[in-house]
Amino acid sequence: MIIERDDIVVLIDEKGKRCMVNVDGKTRKIKGFGVINSQEFVGLEYGKKIVLGTKNVWLLKPFSYDRWGALKRKAQIILPKDAAQIIVNCSIVSGSIVVEGGIGSGSLTTVLSQIVAPDGKIISYEKRRDFIDFAMKNLRNVRVLDYVEIKERDITKGIDEKDVDAVVLDIPDPWNVIEHAWNALKIGGSIASYSPLISQVERTVNELRKLPFIDIRTIETLQREMIVSKHGTRPSFDMLGHTGYLTFARKVLEI
Amino acid sequence: MIIERDDIVVLIDEKGKRCMVNVDGKTRKIKGFGVINSQEFVGLEYGKKIVLGTKNVWLLKPFSYDRWGALKRKAQIILPKDAAQIIVNCSIVSGSIVVEGGIGSGSLTTVLSQIVAPDGKIISYEKRRDFIDFAMKNLRNVRVLDYVEIKERDITKGIDEKDVDAVVLDIPDPWNVIEHAWNALKIGGSIASYSPLISQVERTVNELRKLPFIDIRTIETLQREMIVSKHGTRPSFDMLGHTGYLTFARKVLEI
Amino acid sequence: MIIERDDIVVLIDEKGKRCMVNVDGKTRKIKGFGVINSQEFVGLEYGKKIVLGTKNVWLLKPFSYDRWGALKRKAQIILPKDAAQIIVNCSIVSGSIVVEGGIGSGSLTTVLSQIVAPDGKIISYEKRRDFIDFAMKNLRNVRVLDYVEIKERDITKGIDEKDVDAVVLDIPDPWNVIEHAWNALKIGGSIASYSPLISQVERTVNELRKLPFIDIRTIETLQREMIVSKHGTRPSFDMLGHTGYLTFARKVLEI
Amino acid sequence: MIIERDDIVVLIDEKGKRCMVNVDGKTRKIKGFGVINSQEFVGLEYGKKIVLGTKNVWLLKPFSYDRWGALKRKAQIILPKDAAQIIVNCSIVSGSIVVEGGIGSGSLTTVLSQIVAPDGKIISYEKRRDFIDFAMKNLRNVRVLDYVEIKERDITKGIDEKDVDAVVLDIPDPWNVIEHAWNALKIGGSIASYSPLISQVERTVNELRKLPFIDIRTIETLQREMIVSKHGTRPSFDMLGHTGYLTFARKVLEI
Repeated sequence: MIIERDDIVVLIDEKGKRCMVNVDGKTRKIKGFGVINSQEFVGLEYGKKIVLGTKNVWLLKPFSYDRWGALKRKAQIILPKDAAQIIVNCSIVSGSIVVEGGIGSGSLTTVLSQIVAPDGKIISYEKRRDFIDFAMKNLRNVRVLDYVEIKERDITKGIDEKDVDAVVLDIPDPWNVIEHAWNALKIGGSIASYSPLISQVERTVNELRKLPFIDIRTIETLQREMIVSKHGTRPSFDMLGHTGYLTFARKVLEI
Repeated sequence: MIIERDDIVVLIDEKGKRCMVNVDGKTRKIKGFGVINSQEFVGLEYGKKIVLGTKNVWLLKPFSYDRWGALKRKAQIILPKDAAQIIVNCSIVSGSIVVEGGIGSGSLTTVLSQIVAPDGKIISYEKRRDFIDFAMKNLRNVRVLDYVEIKERDITKGIDEKDVDAVVLDIPDPWNVIEHAWNALKIGGSIASYSPLISQVERTVNELRKLPFIDIRTIETLQREMIVSKHGTRPSFDMLGHTGYLTFARKVLEI
Repeated sequence: MIIERDDIVVLIDEKGKRCMVNVDGKTRKIKGFGVINSQEFVGLEYGKKIVLGTKNVWLLKPFSYDRWGALKRKAQIILPKDAAQIIVNCSIVSGSIVVEGGIGSGSLTTVLSQIVAPDGKIISYEKRRDFIDFAMKNLRNVRVLDYVEIKERDITKGIDEKDVDAVVLDIPDPWNVIEHAWNALKIGGSIASYSPLISQVERTVNELRKLPFIDIRTIETLQREMIVSKHGTRPSFDMLGHTGYLTFARKVLEI
Repeated sequence: MIIERDDIVVLIDEKGKRCMVNVDGKTRKIKGFGVINSQEFVGLEYGKKIVLGTKNVWLLKPFSYDRWGALKRKAQIILPKDAAQIIVNCSIVSGSIVVEGGIGSGSLTTVLSQIVAPDGKIISYEKRRDFIDFAMKNLRNVRVLDYVEIKERDITKGIDEKDVDAVVLDIPDPWNVIEHAWNALKIGGSIASYSPLISQVERTVNELRKLPFIDIRTIETLQREMIVSKHGTRPSFDMLGHTGYLTFARKVLEI
């Protein structure tokens, strides 16, 4: 398959670094990849290796994971290891309607939007204009805006939607959204809350216990890479000690 | 919303134990739940609590996670924490065509099939008839058979499909499938291999390095529950020390 | 070297299970080892294998780790992985004077007493008579009583000793001992507190911060066994998810 | 207690950084602490805070942990979390005679030497002169040379000592020392081997299984700091993903 004008391609280097490029004929400078003339990609076959400066780079059609990898980051983002737990534990699938509280850099939004596509939607509440602007630019760049609706609103003040499949929170005070979430969720729908601090987990869990929620669980997920080399195999010395705890619960009618 | 005759409901108890019941009017004995007369569910509201024997049980429409939770287990299964990593790292989304090697109890099949629905498909290769029979019964019970095709075949002998989005392996000798996987995958498609042993990881990685695969990574995911009680919060004493390593790679044309 | 009458021997089975036996000529029934006639050990060489019932057992002179392994357990005990951190982080060495709050089953007391021997001492405060009786029996059985002094006292009410090298706490309310510990410690001496709950850690750390303590740190130690078999190597499926957090600090004159 | 001329003091800053200084009246430049005039310490009370440049520093008599903390590091060193496991699992106590293979920067030597003091000894085999020189300077600086004997020898060629309590290895090919270790150990004595790679563990364990060793176990120890702040408590984001595996075994006469 051949790259054509106006395609969107992802560039992946040998270390897994990614960027997404619109093949619009323009020349751009991309951090970590150098000056790229997209016109030169036209006519190349997908999957081919090119040399950019001193490094090998492969050109691919962007898959879901590439879109996430091509995001620009601002402050802390929700990592794939945690986003993955949200998808599975909240039963997020194609067609799901998900309310998100706190858009951050759009990292979680990007991962979830591709799961709910084409008929589902992520409705993202974010009160800070600067976060919305940054996230919008990111989401537009990785082409997932079709499945995302952004509301410049404080989710602790309320949720407009009804009968949603999941409410996913990444805000400092998730306990202030629990009652709104219960009202917004359909019966059996899930809430997920991502918090780095124990005290946040405690207040959130205690709030969940006051309302008809079941299957309340909090997990921490650790991930470590294994390095396979000709000398032998060992776990990576680099490891992220902590990202956040994830608290899940399901809405029912009564407890 | 009211439970009607011929609905499928999931029963969830206070400890998160699940089973799925066809509201066909029959009475069944279900392990862990006792004798259940499904006729009595007709007319109840979804989300209501009932008492079965001495325990509280909630009735819900089954969500994706409930289907997984209602599976019967035989030998070791791939847990949600690992299935979740496969979904995100292999970019599995609605519409994806996924070849699976080794169906086991159908646990991974169940989780993935609900992500690829309604237009995607899981094609599962399994050489053992007894595994197929067990898995089929499981998949039928949790109603995900529409998105699954099972082939009684040894995947190390070859893969029929072409241009698939992902090949996911849970077999003792994944290294024997790497070349077949490369042939079956579309450019940019992903392979994932799940193995408990280091030696399996090493042979798989070394085989991947011989072919045009990039972004080869092996990860281990650990998960621990946090217990929030009125006495205070602490990590759970119960923790699974190990399930399996996950190795991922992407198909390209040349390396 | 030959086992003689009145020696103390440790028996270790193939799974690492241990018991200590006085070669006094008596016959005993020991849980997990069956009926043992100690007279039969006389004249055997240390390091020889014998068969007890259906299992292989080795006879050794007891080393420090064997004494710990031969303890009877009641409720939760401090494990070697955590006792080891206390030794190193509190600079406990031969000759150290250590005050212990809460004797439990005598597990930590046993490990520490062998480090401080022959000139140091563990002074253990325990308010519950039943705990003291159980621990005393344990300590006597593994022959470490010479380096231990037990006080039937509530350590939250005060510590008699002055100028001690370390104060080690395994009690529910360690924050009530911080000031006593500061008074009891020599300049530069260490406090260690073992607590399973986050809230205990928080109160302890906050109390430490009010007094002249530096180098305040809280750690959690996780340990996993690796299983090497002819099939390959993998981490153990069995793992203890949590024991306790350890908080350390050093006494200074002013902060 | 007052600092006198010719005392050895440890300086600890607010972040736990340490250095050891001989109060000989000289002025030195110490990395991370700046220019220090040791004469100014004379007459100060131990435990007092002084200001060096812009940071607070406390003056203490050096304890065991301080000596470790004041070492200069070259390449990778064995950390306290792992040294601690060696002490406890190998029953190293006051009076123990320990043979060490590979002195590295002297980190493990320092920790162990203070446990075996005053009557025990660490005999360290190291074939590289540059390592010996570096370690000697370190050990001399932290004042633990009295309990250490260094041999410029390749431990894979043999061990002179007999009847030692423990043999501790931190070398690339520990499997070449297993037989020498068996010969050197007393009955019941322990071997410990520290290796970063799985393949090293496998070869070592397989070699141990050929000789009369029991209680063969391999462990990995992970440690994570907890951060208690006024915002709340969470695990540290910084964590070392891997240091090394520790394999232990006990010498017996027959298996």
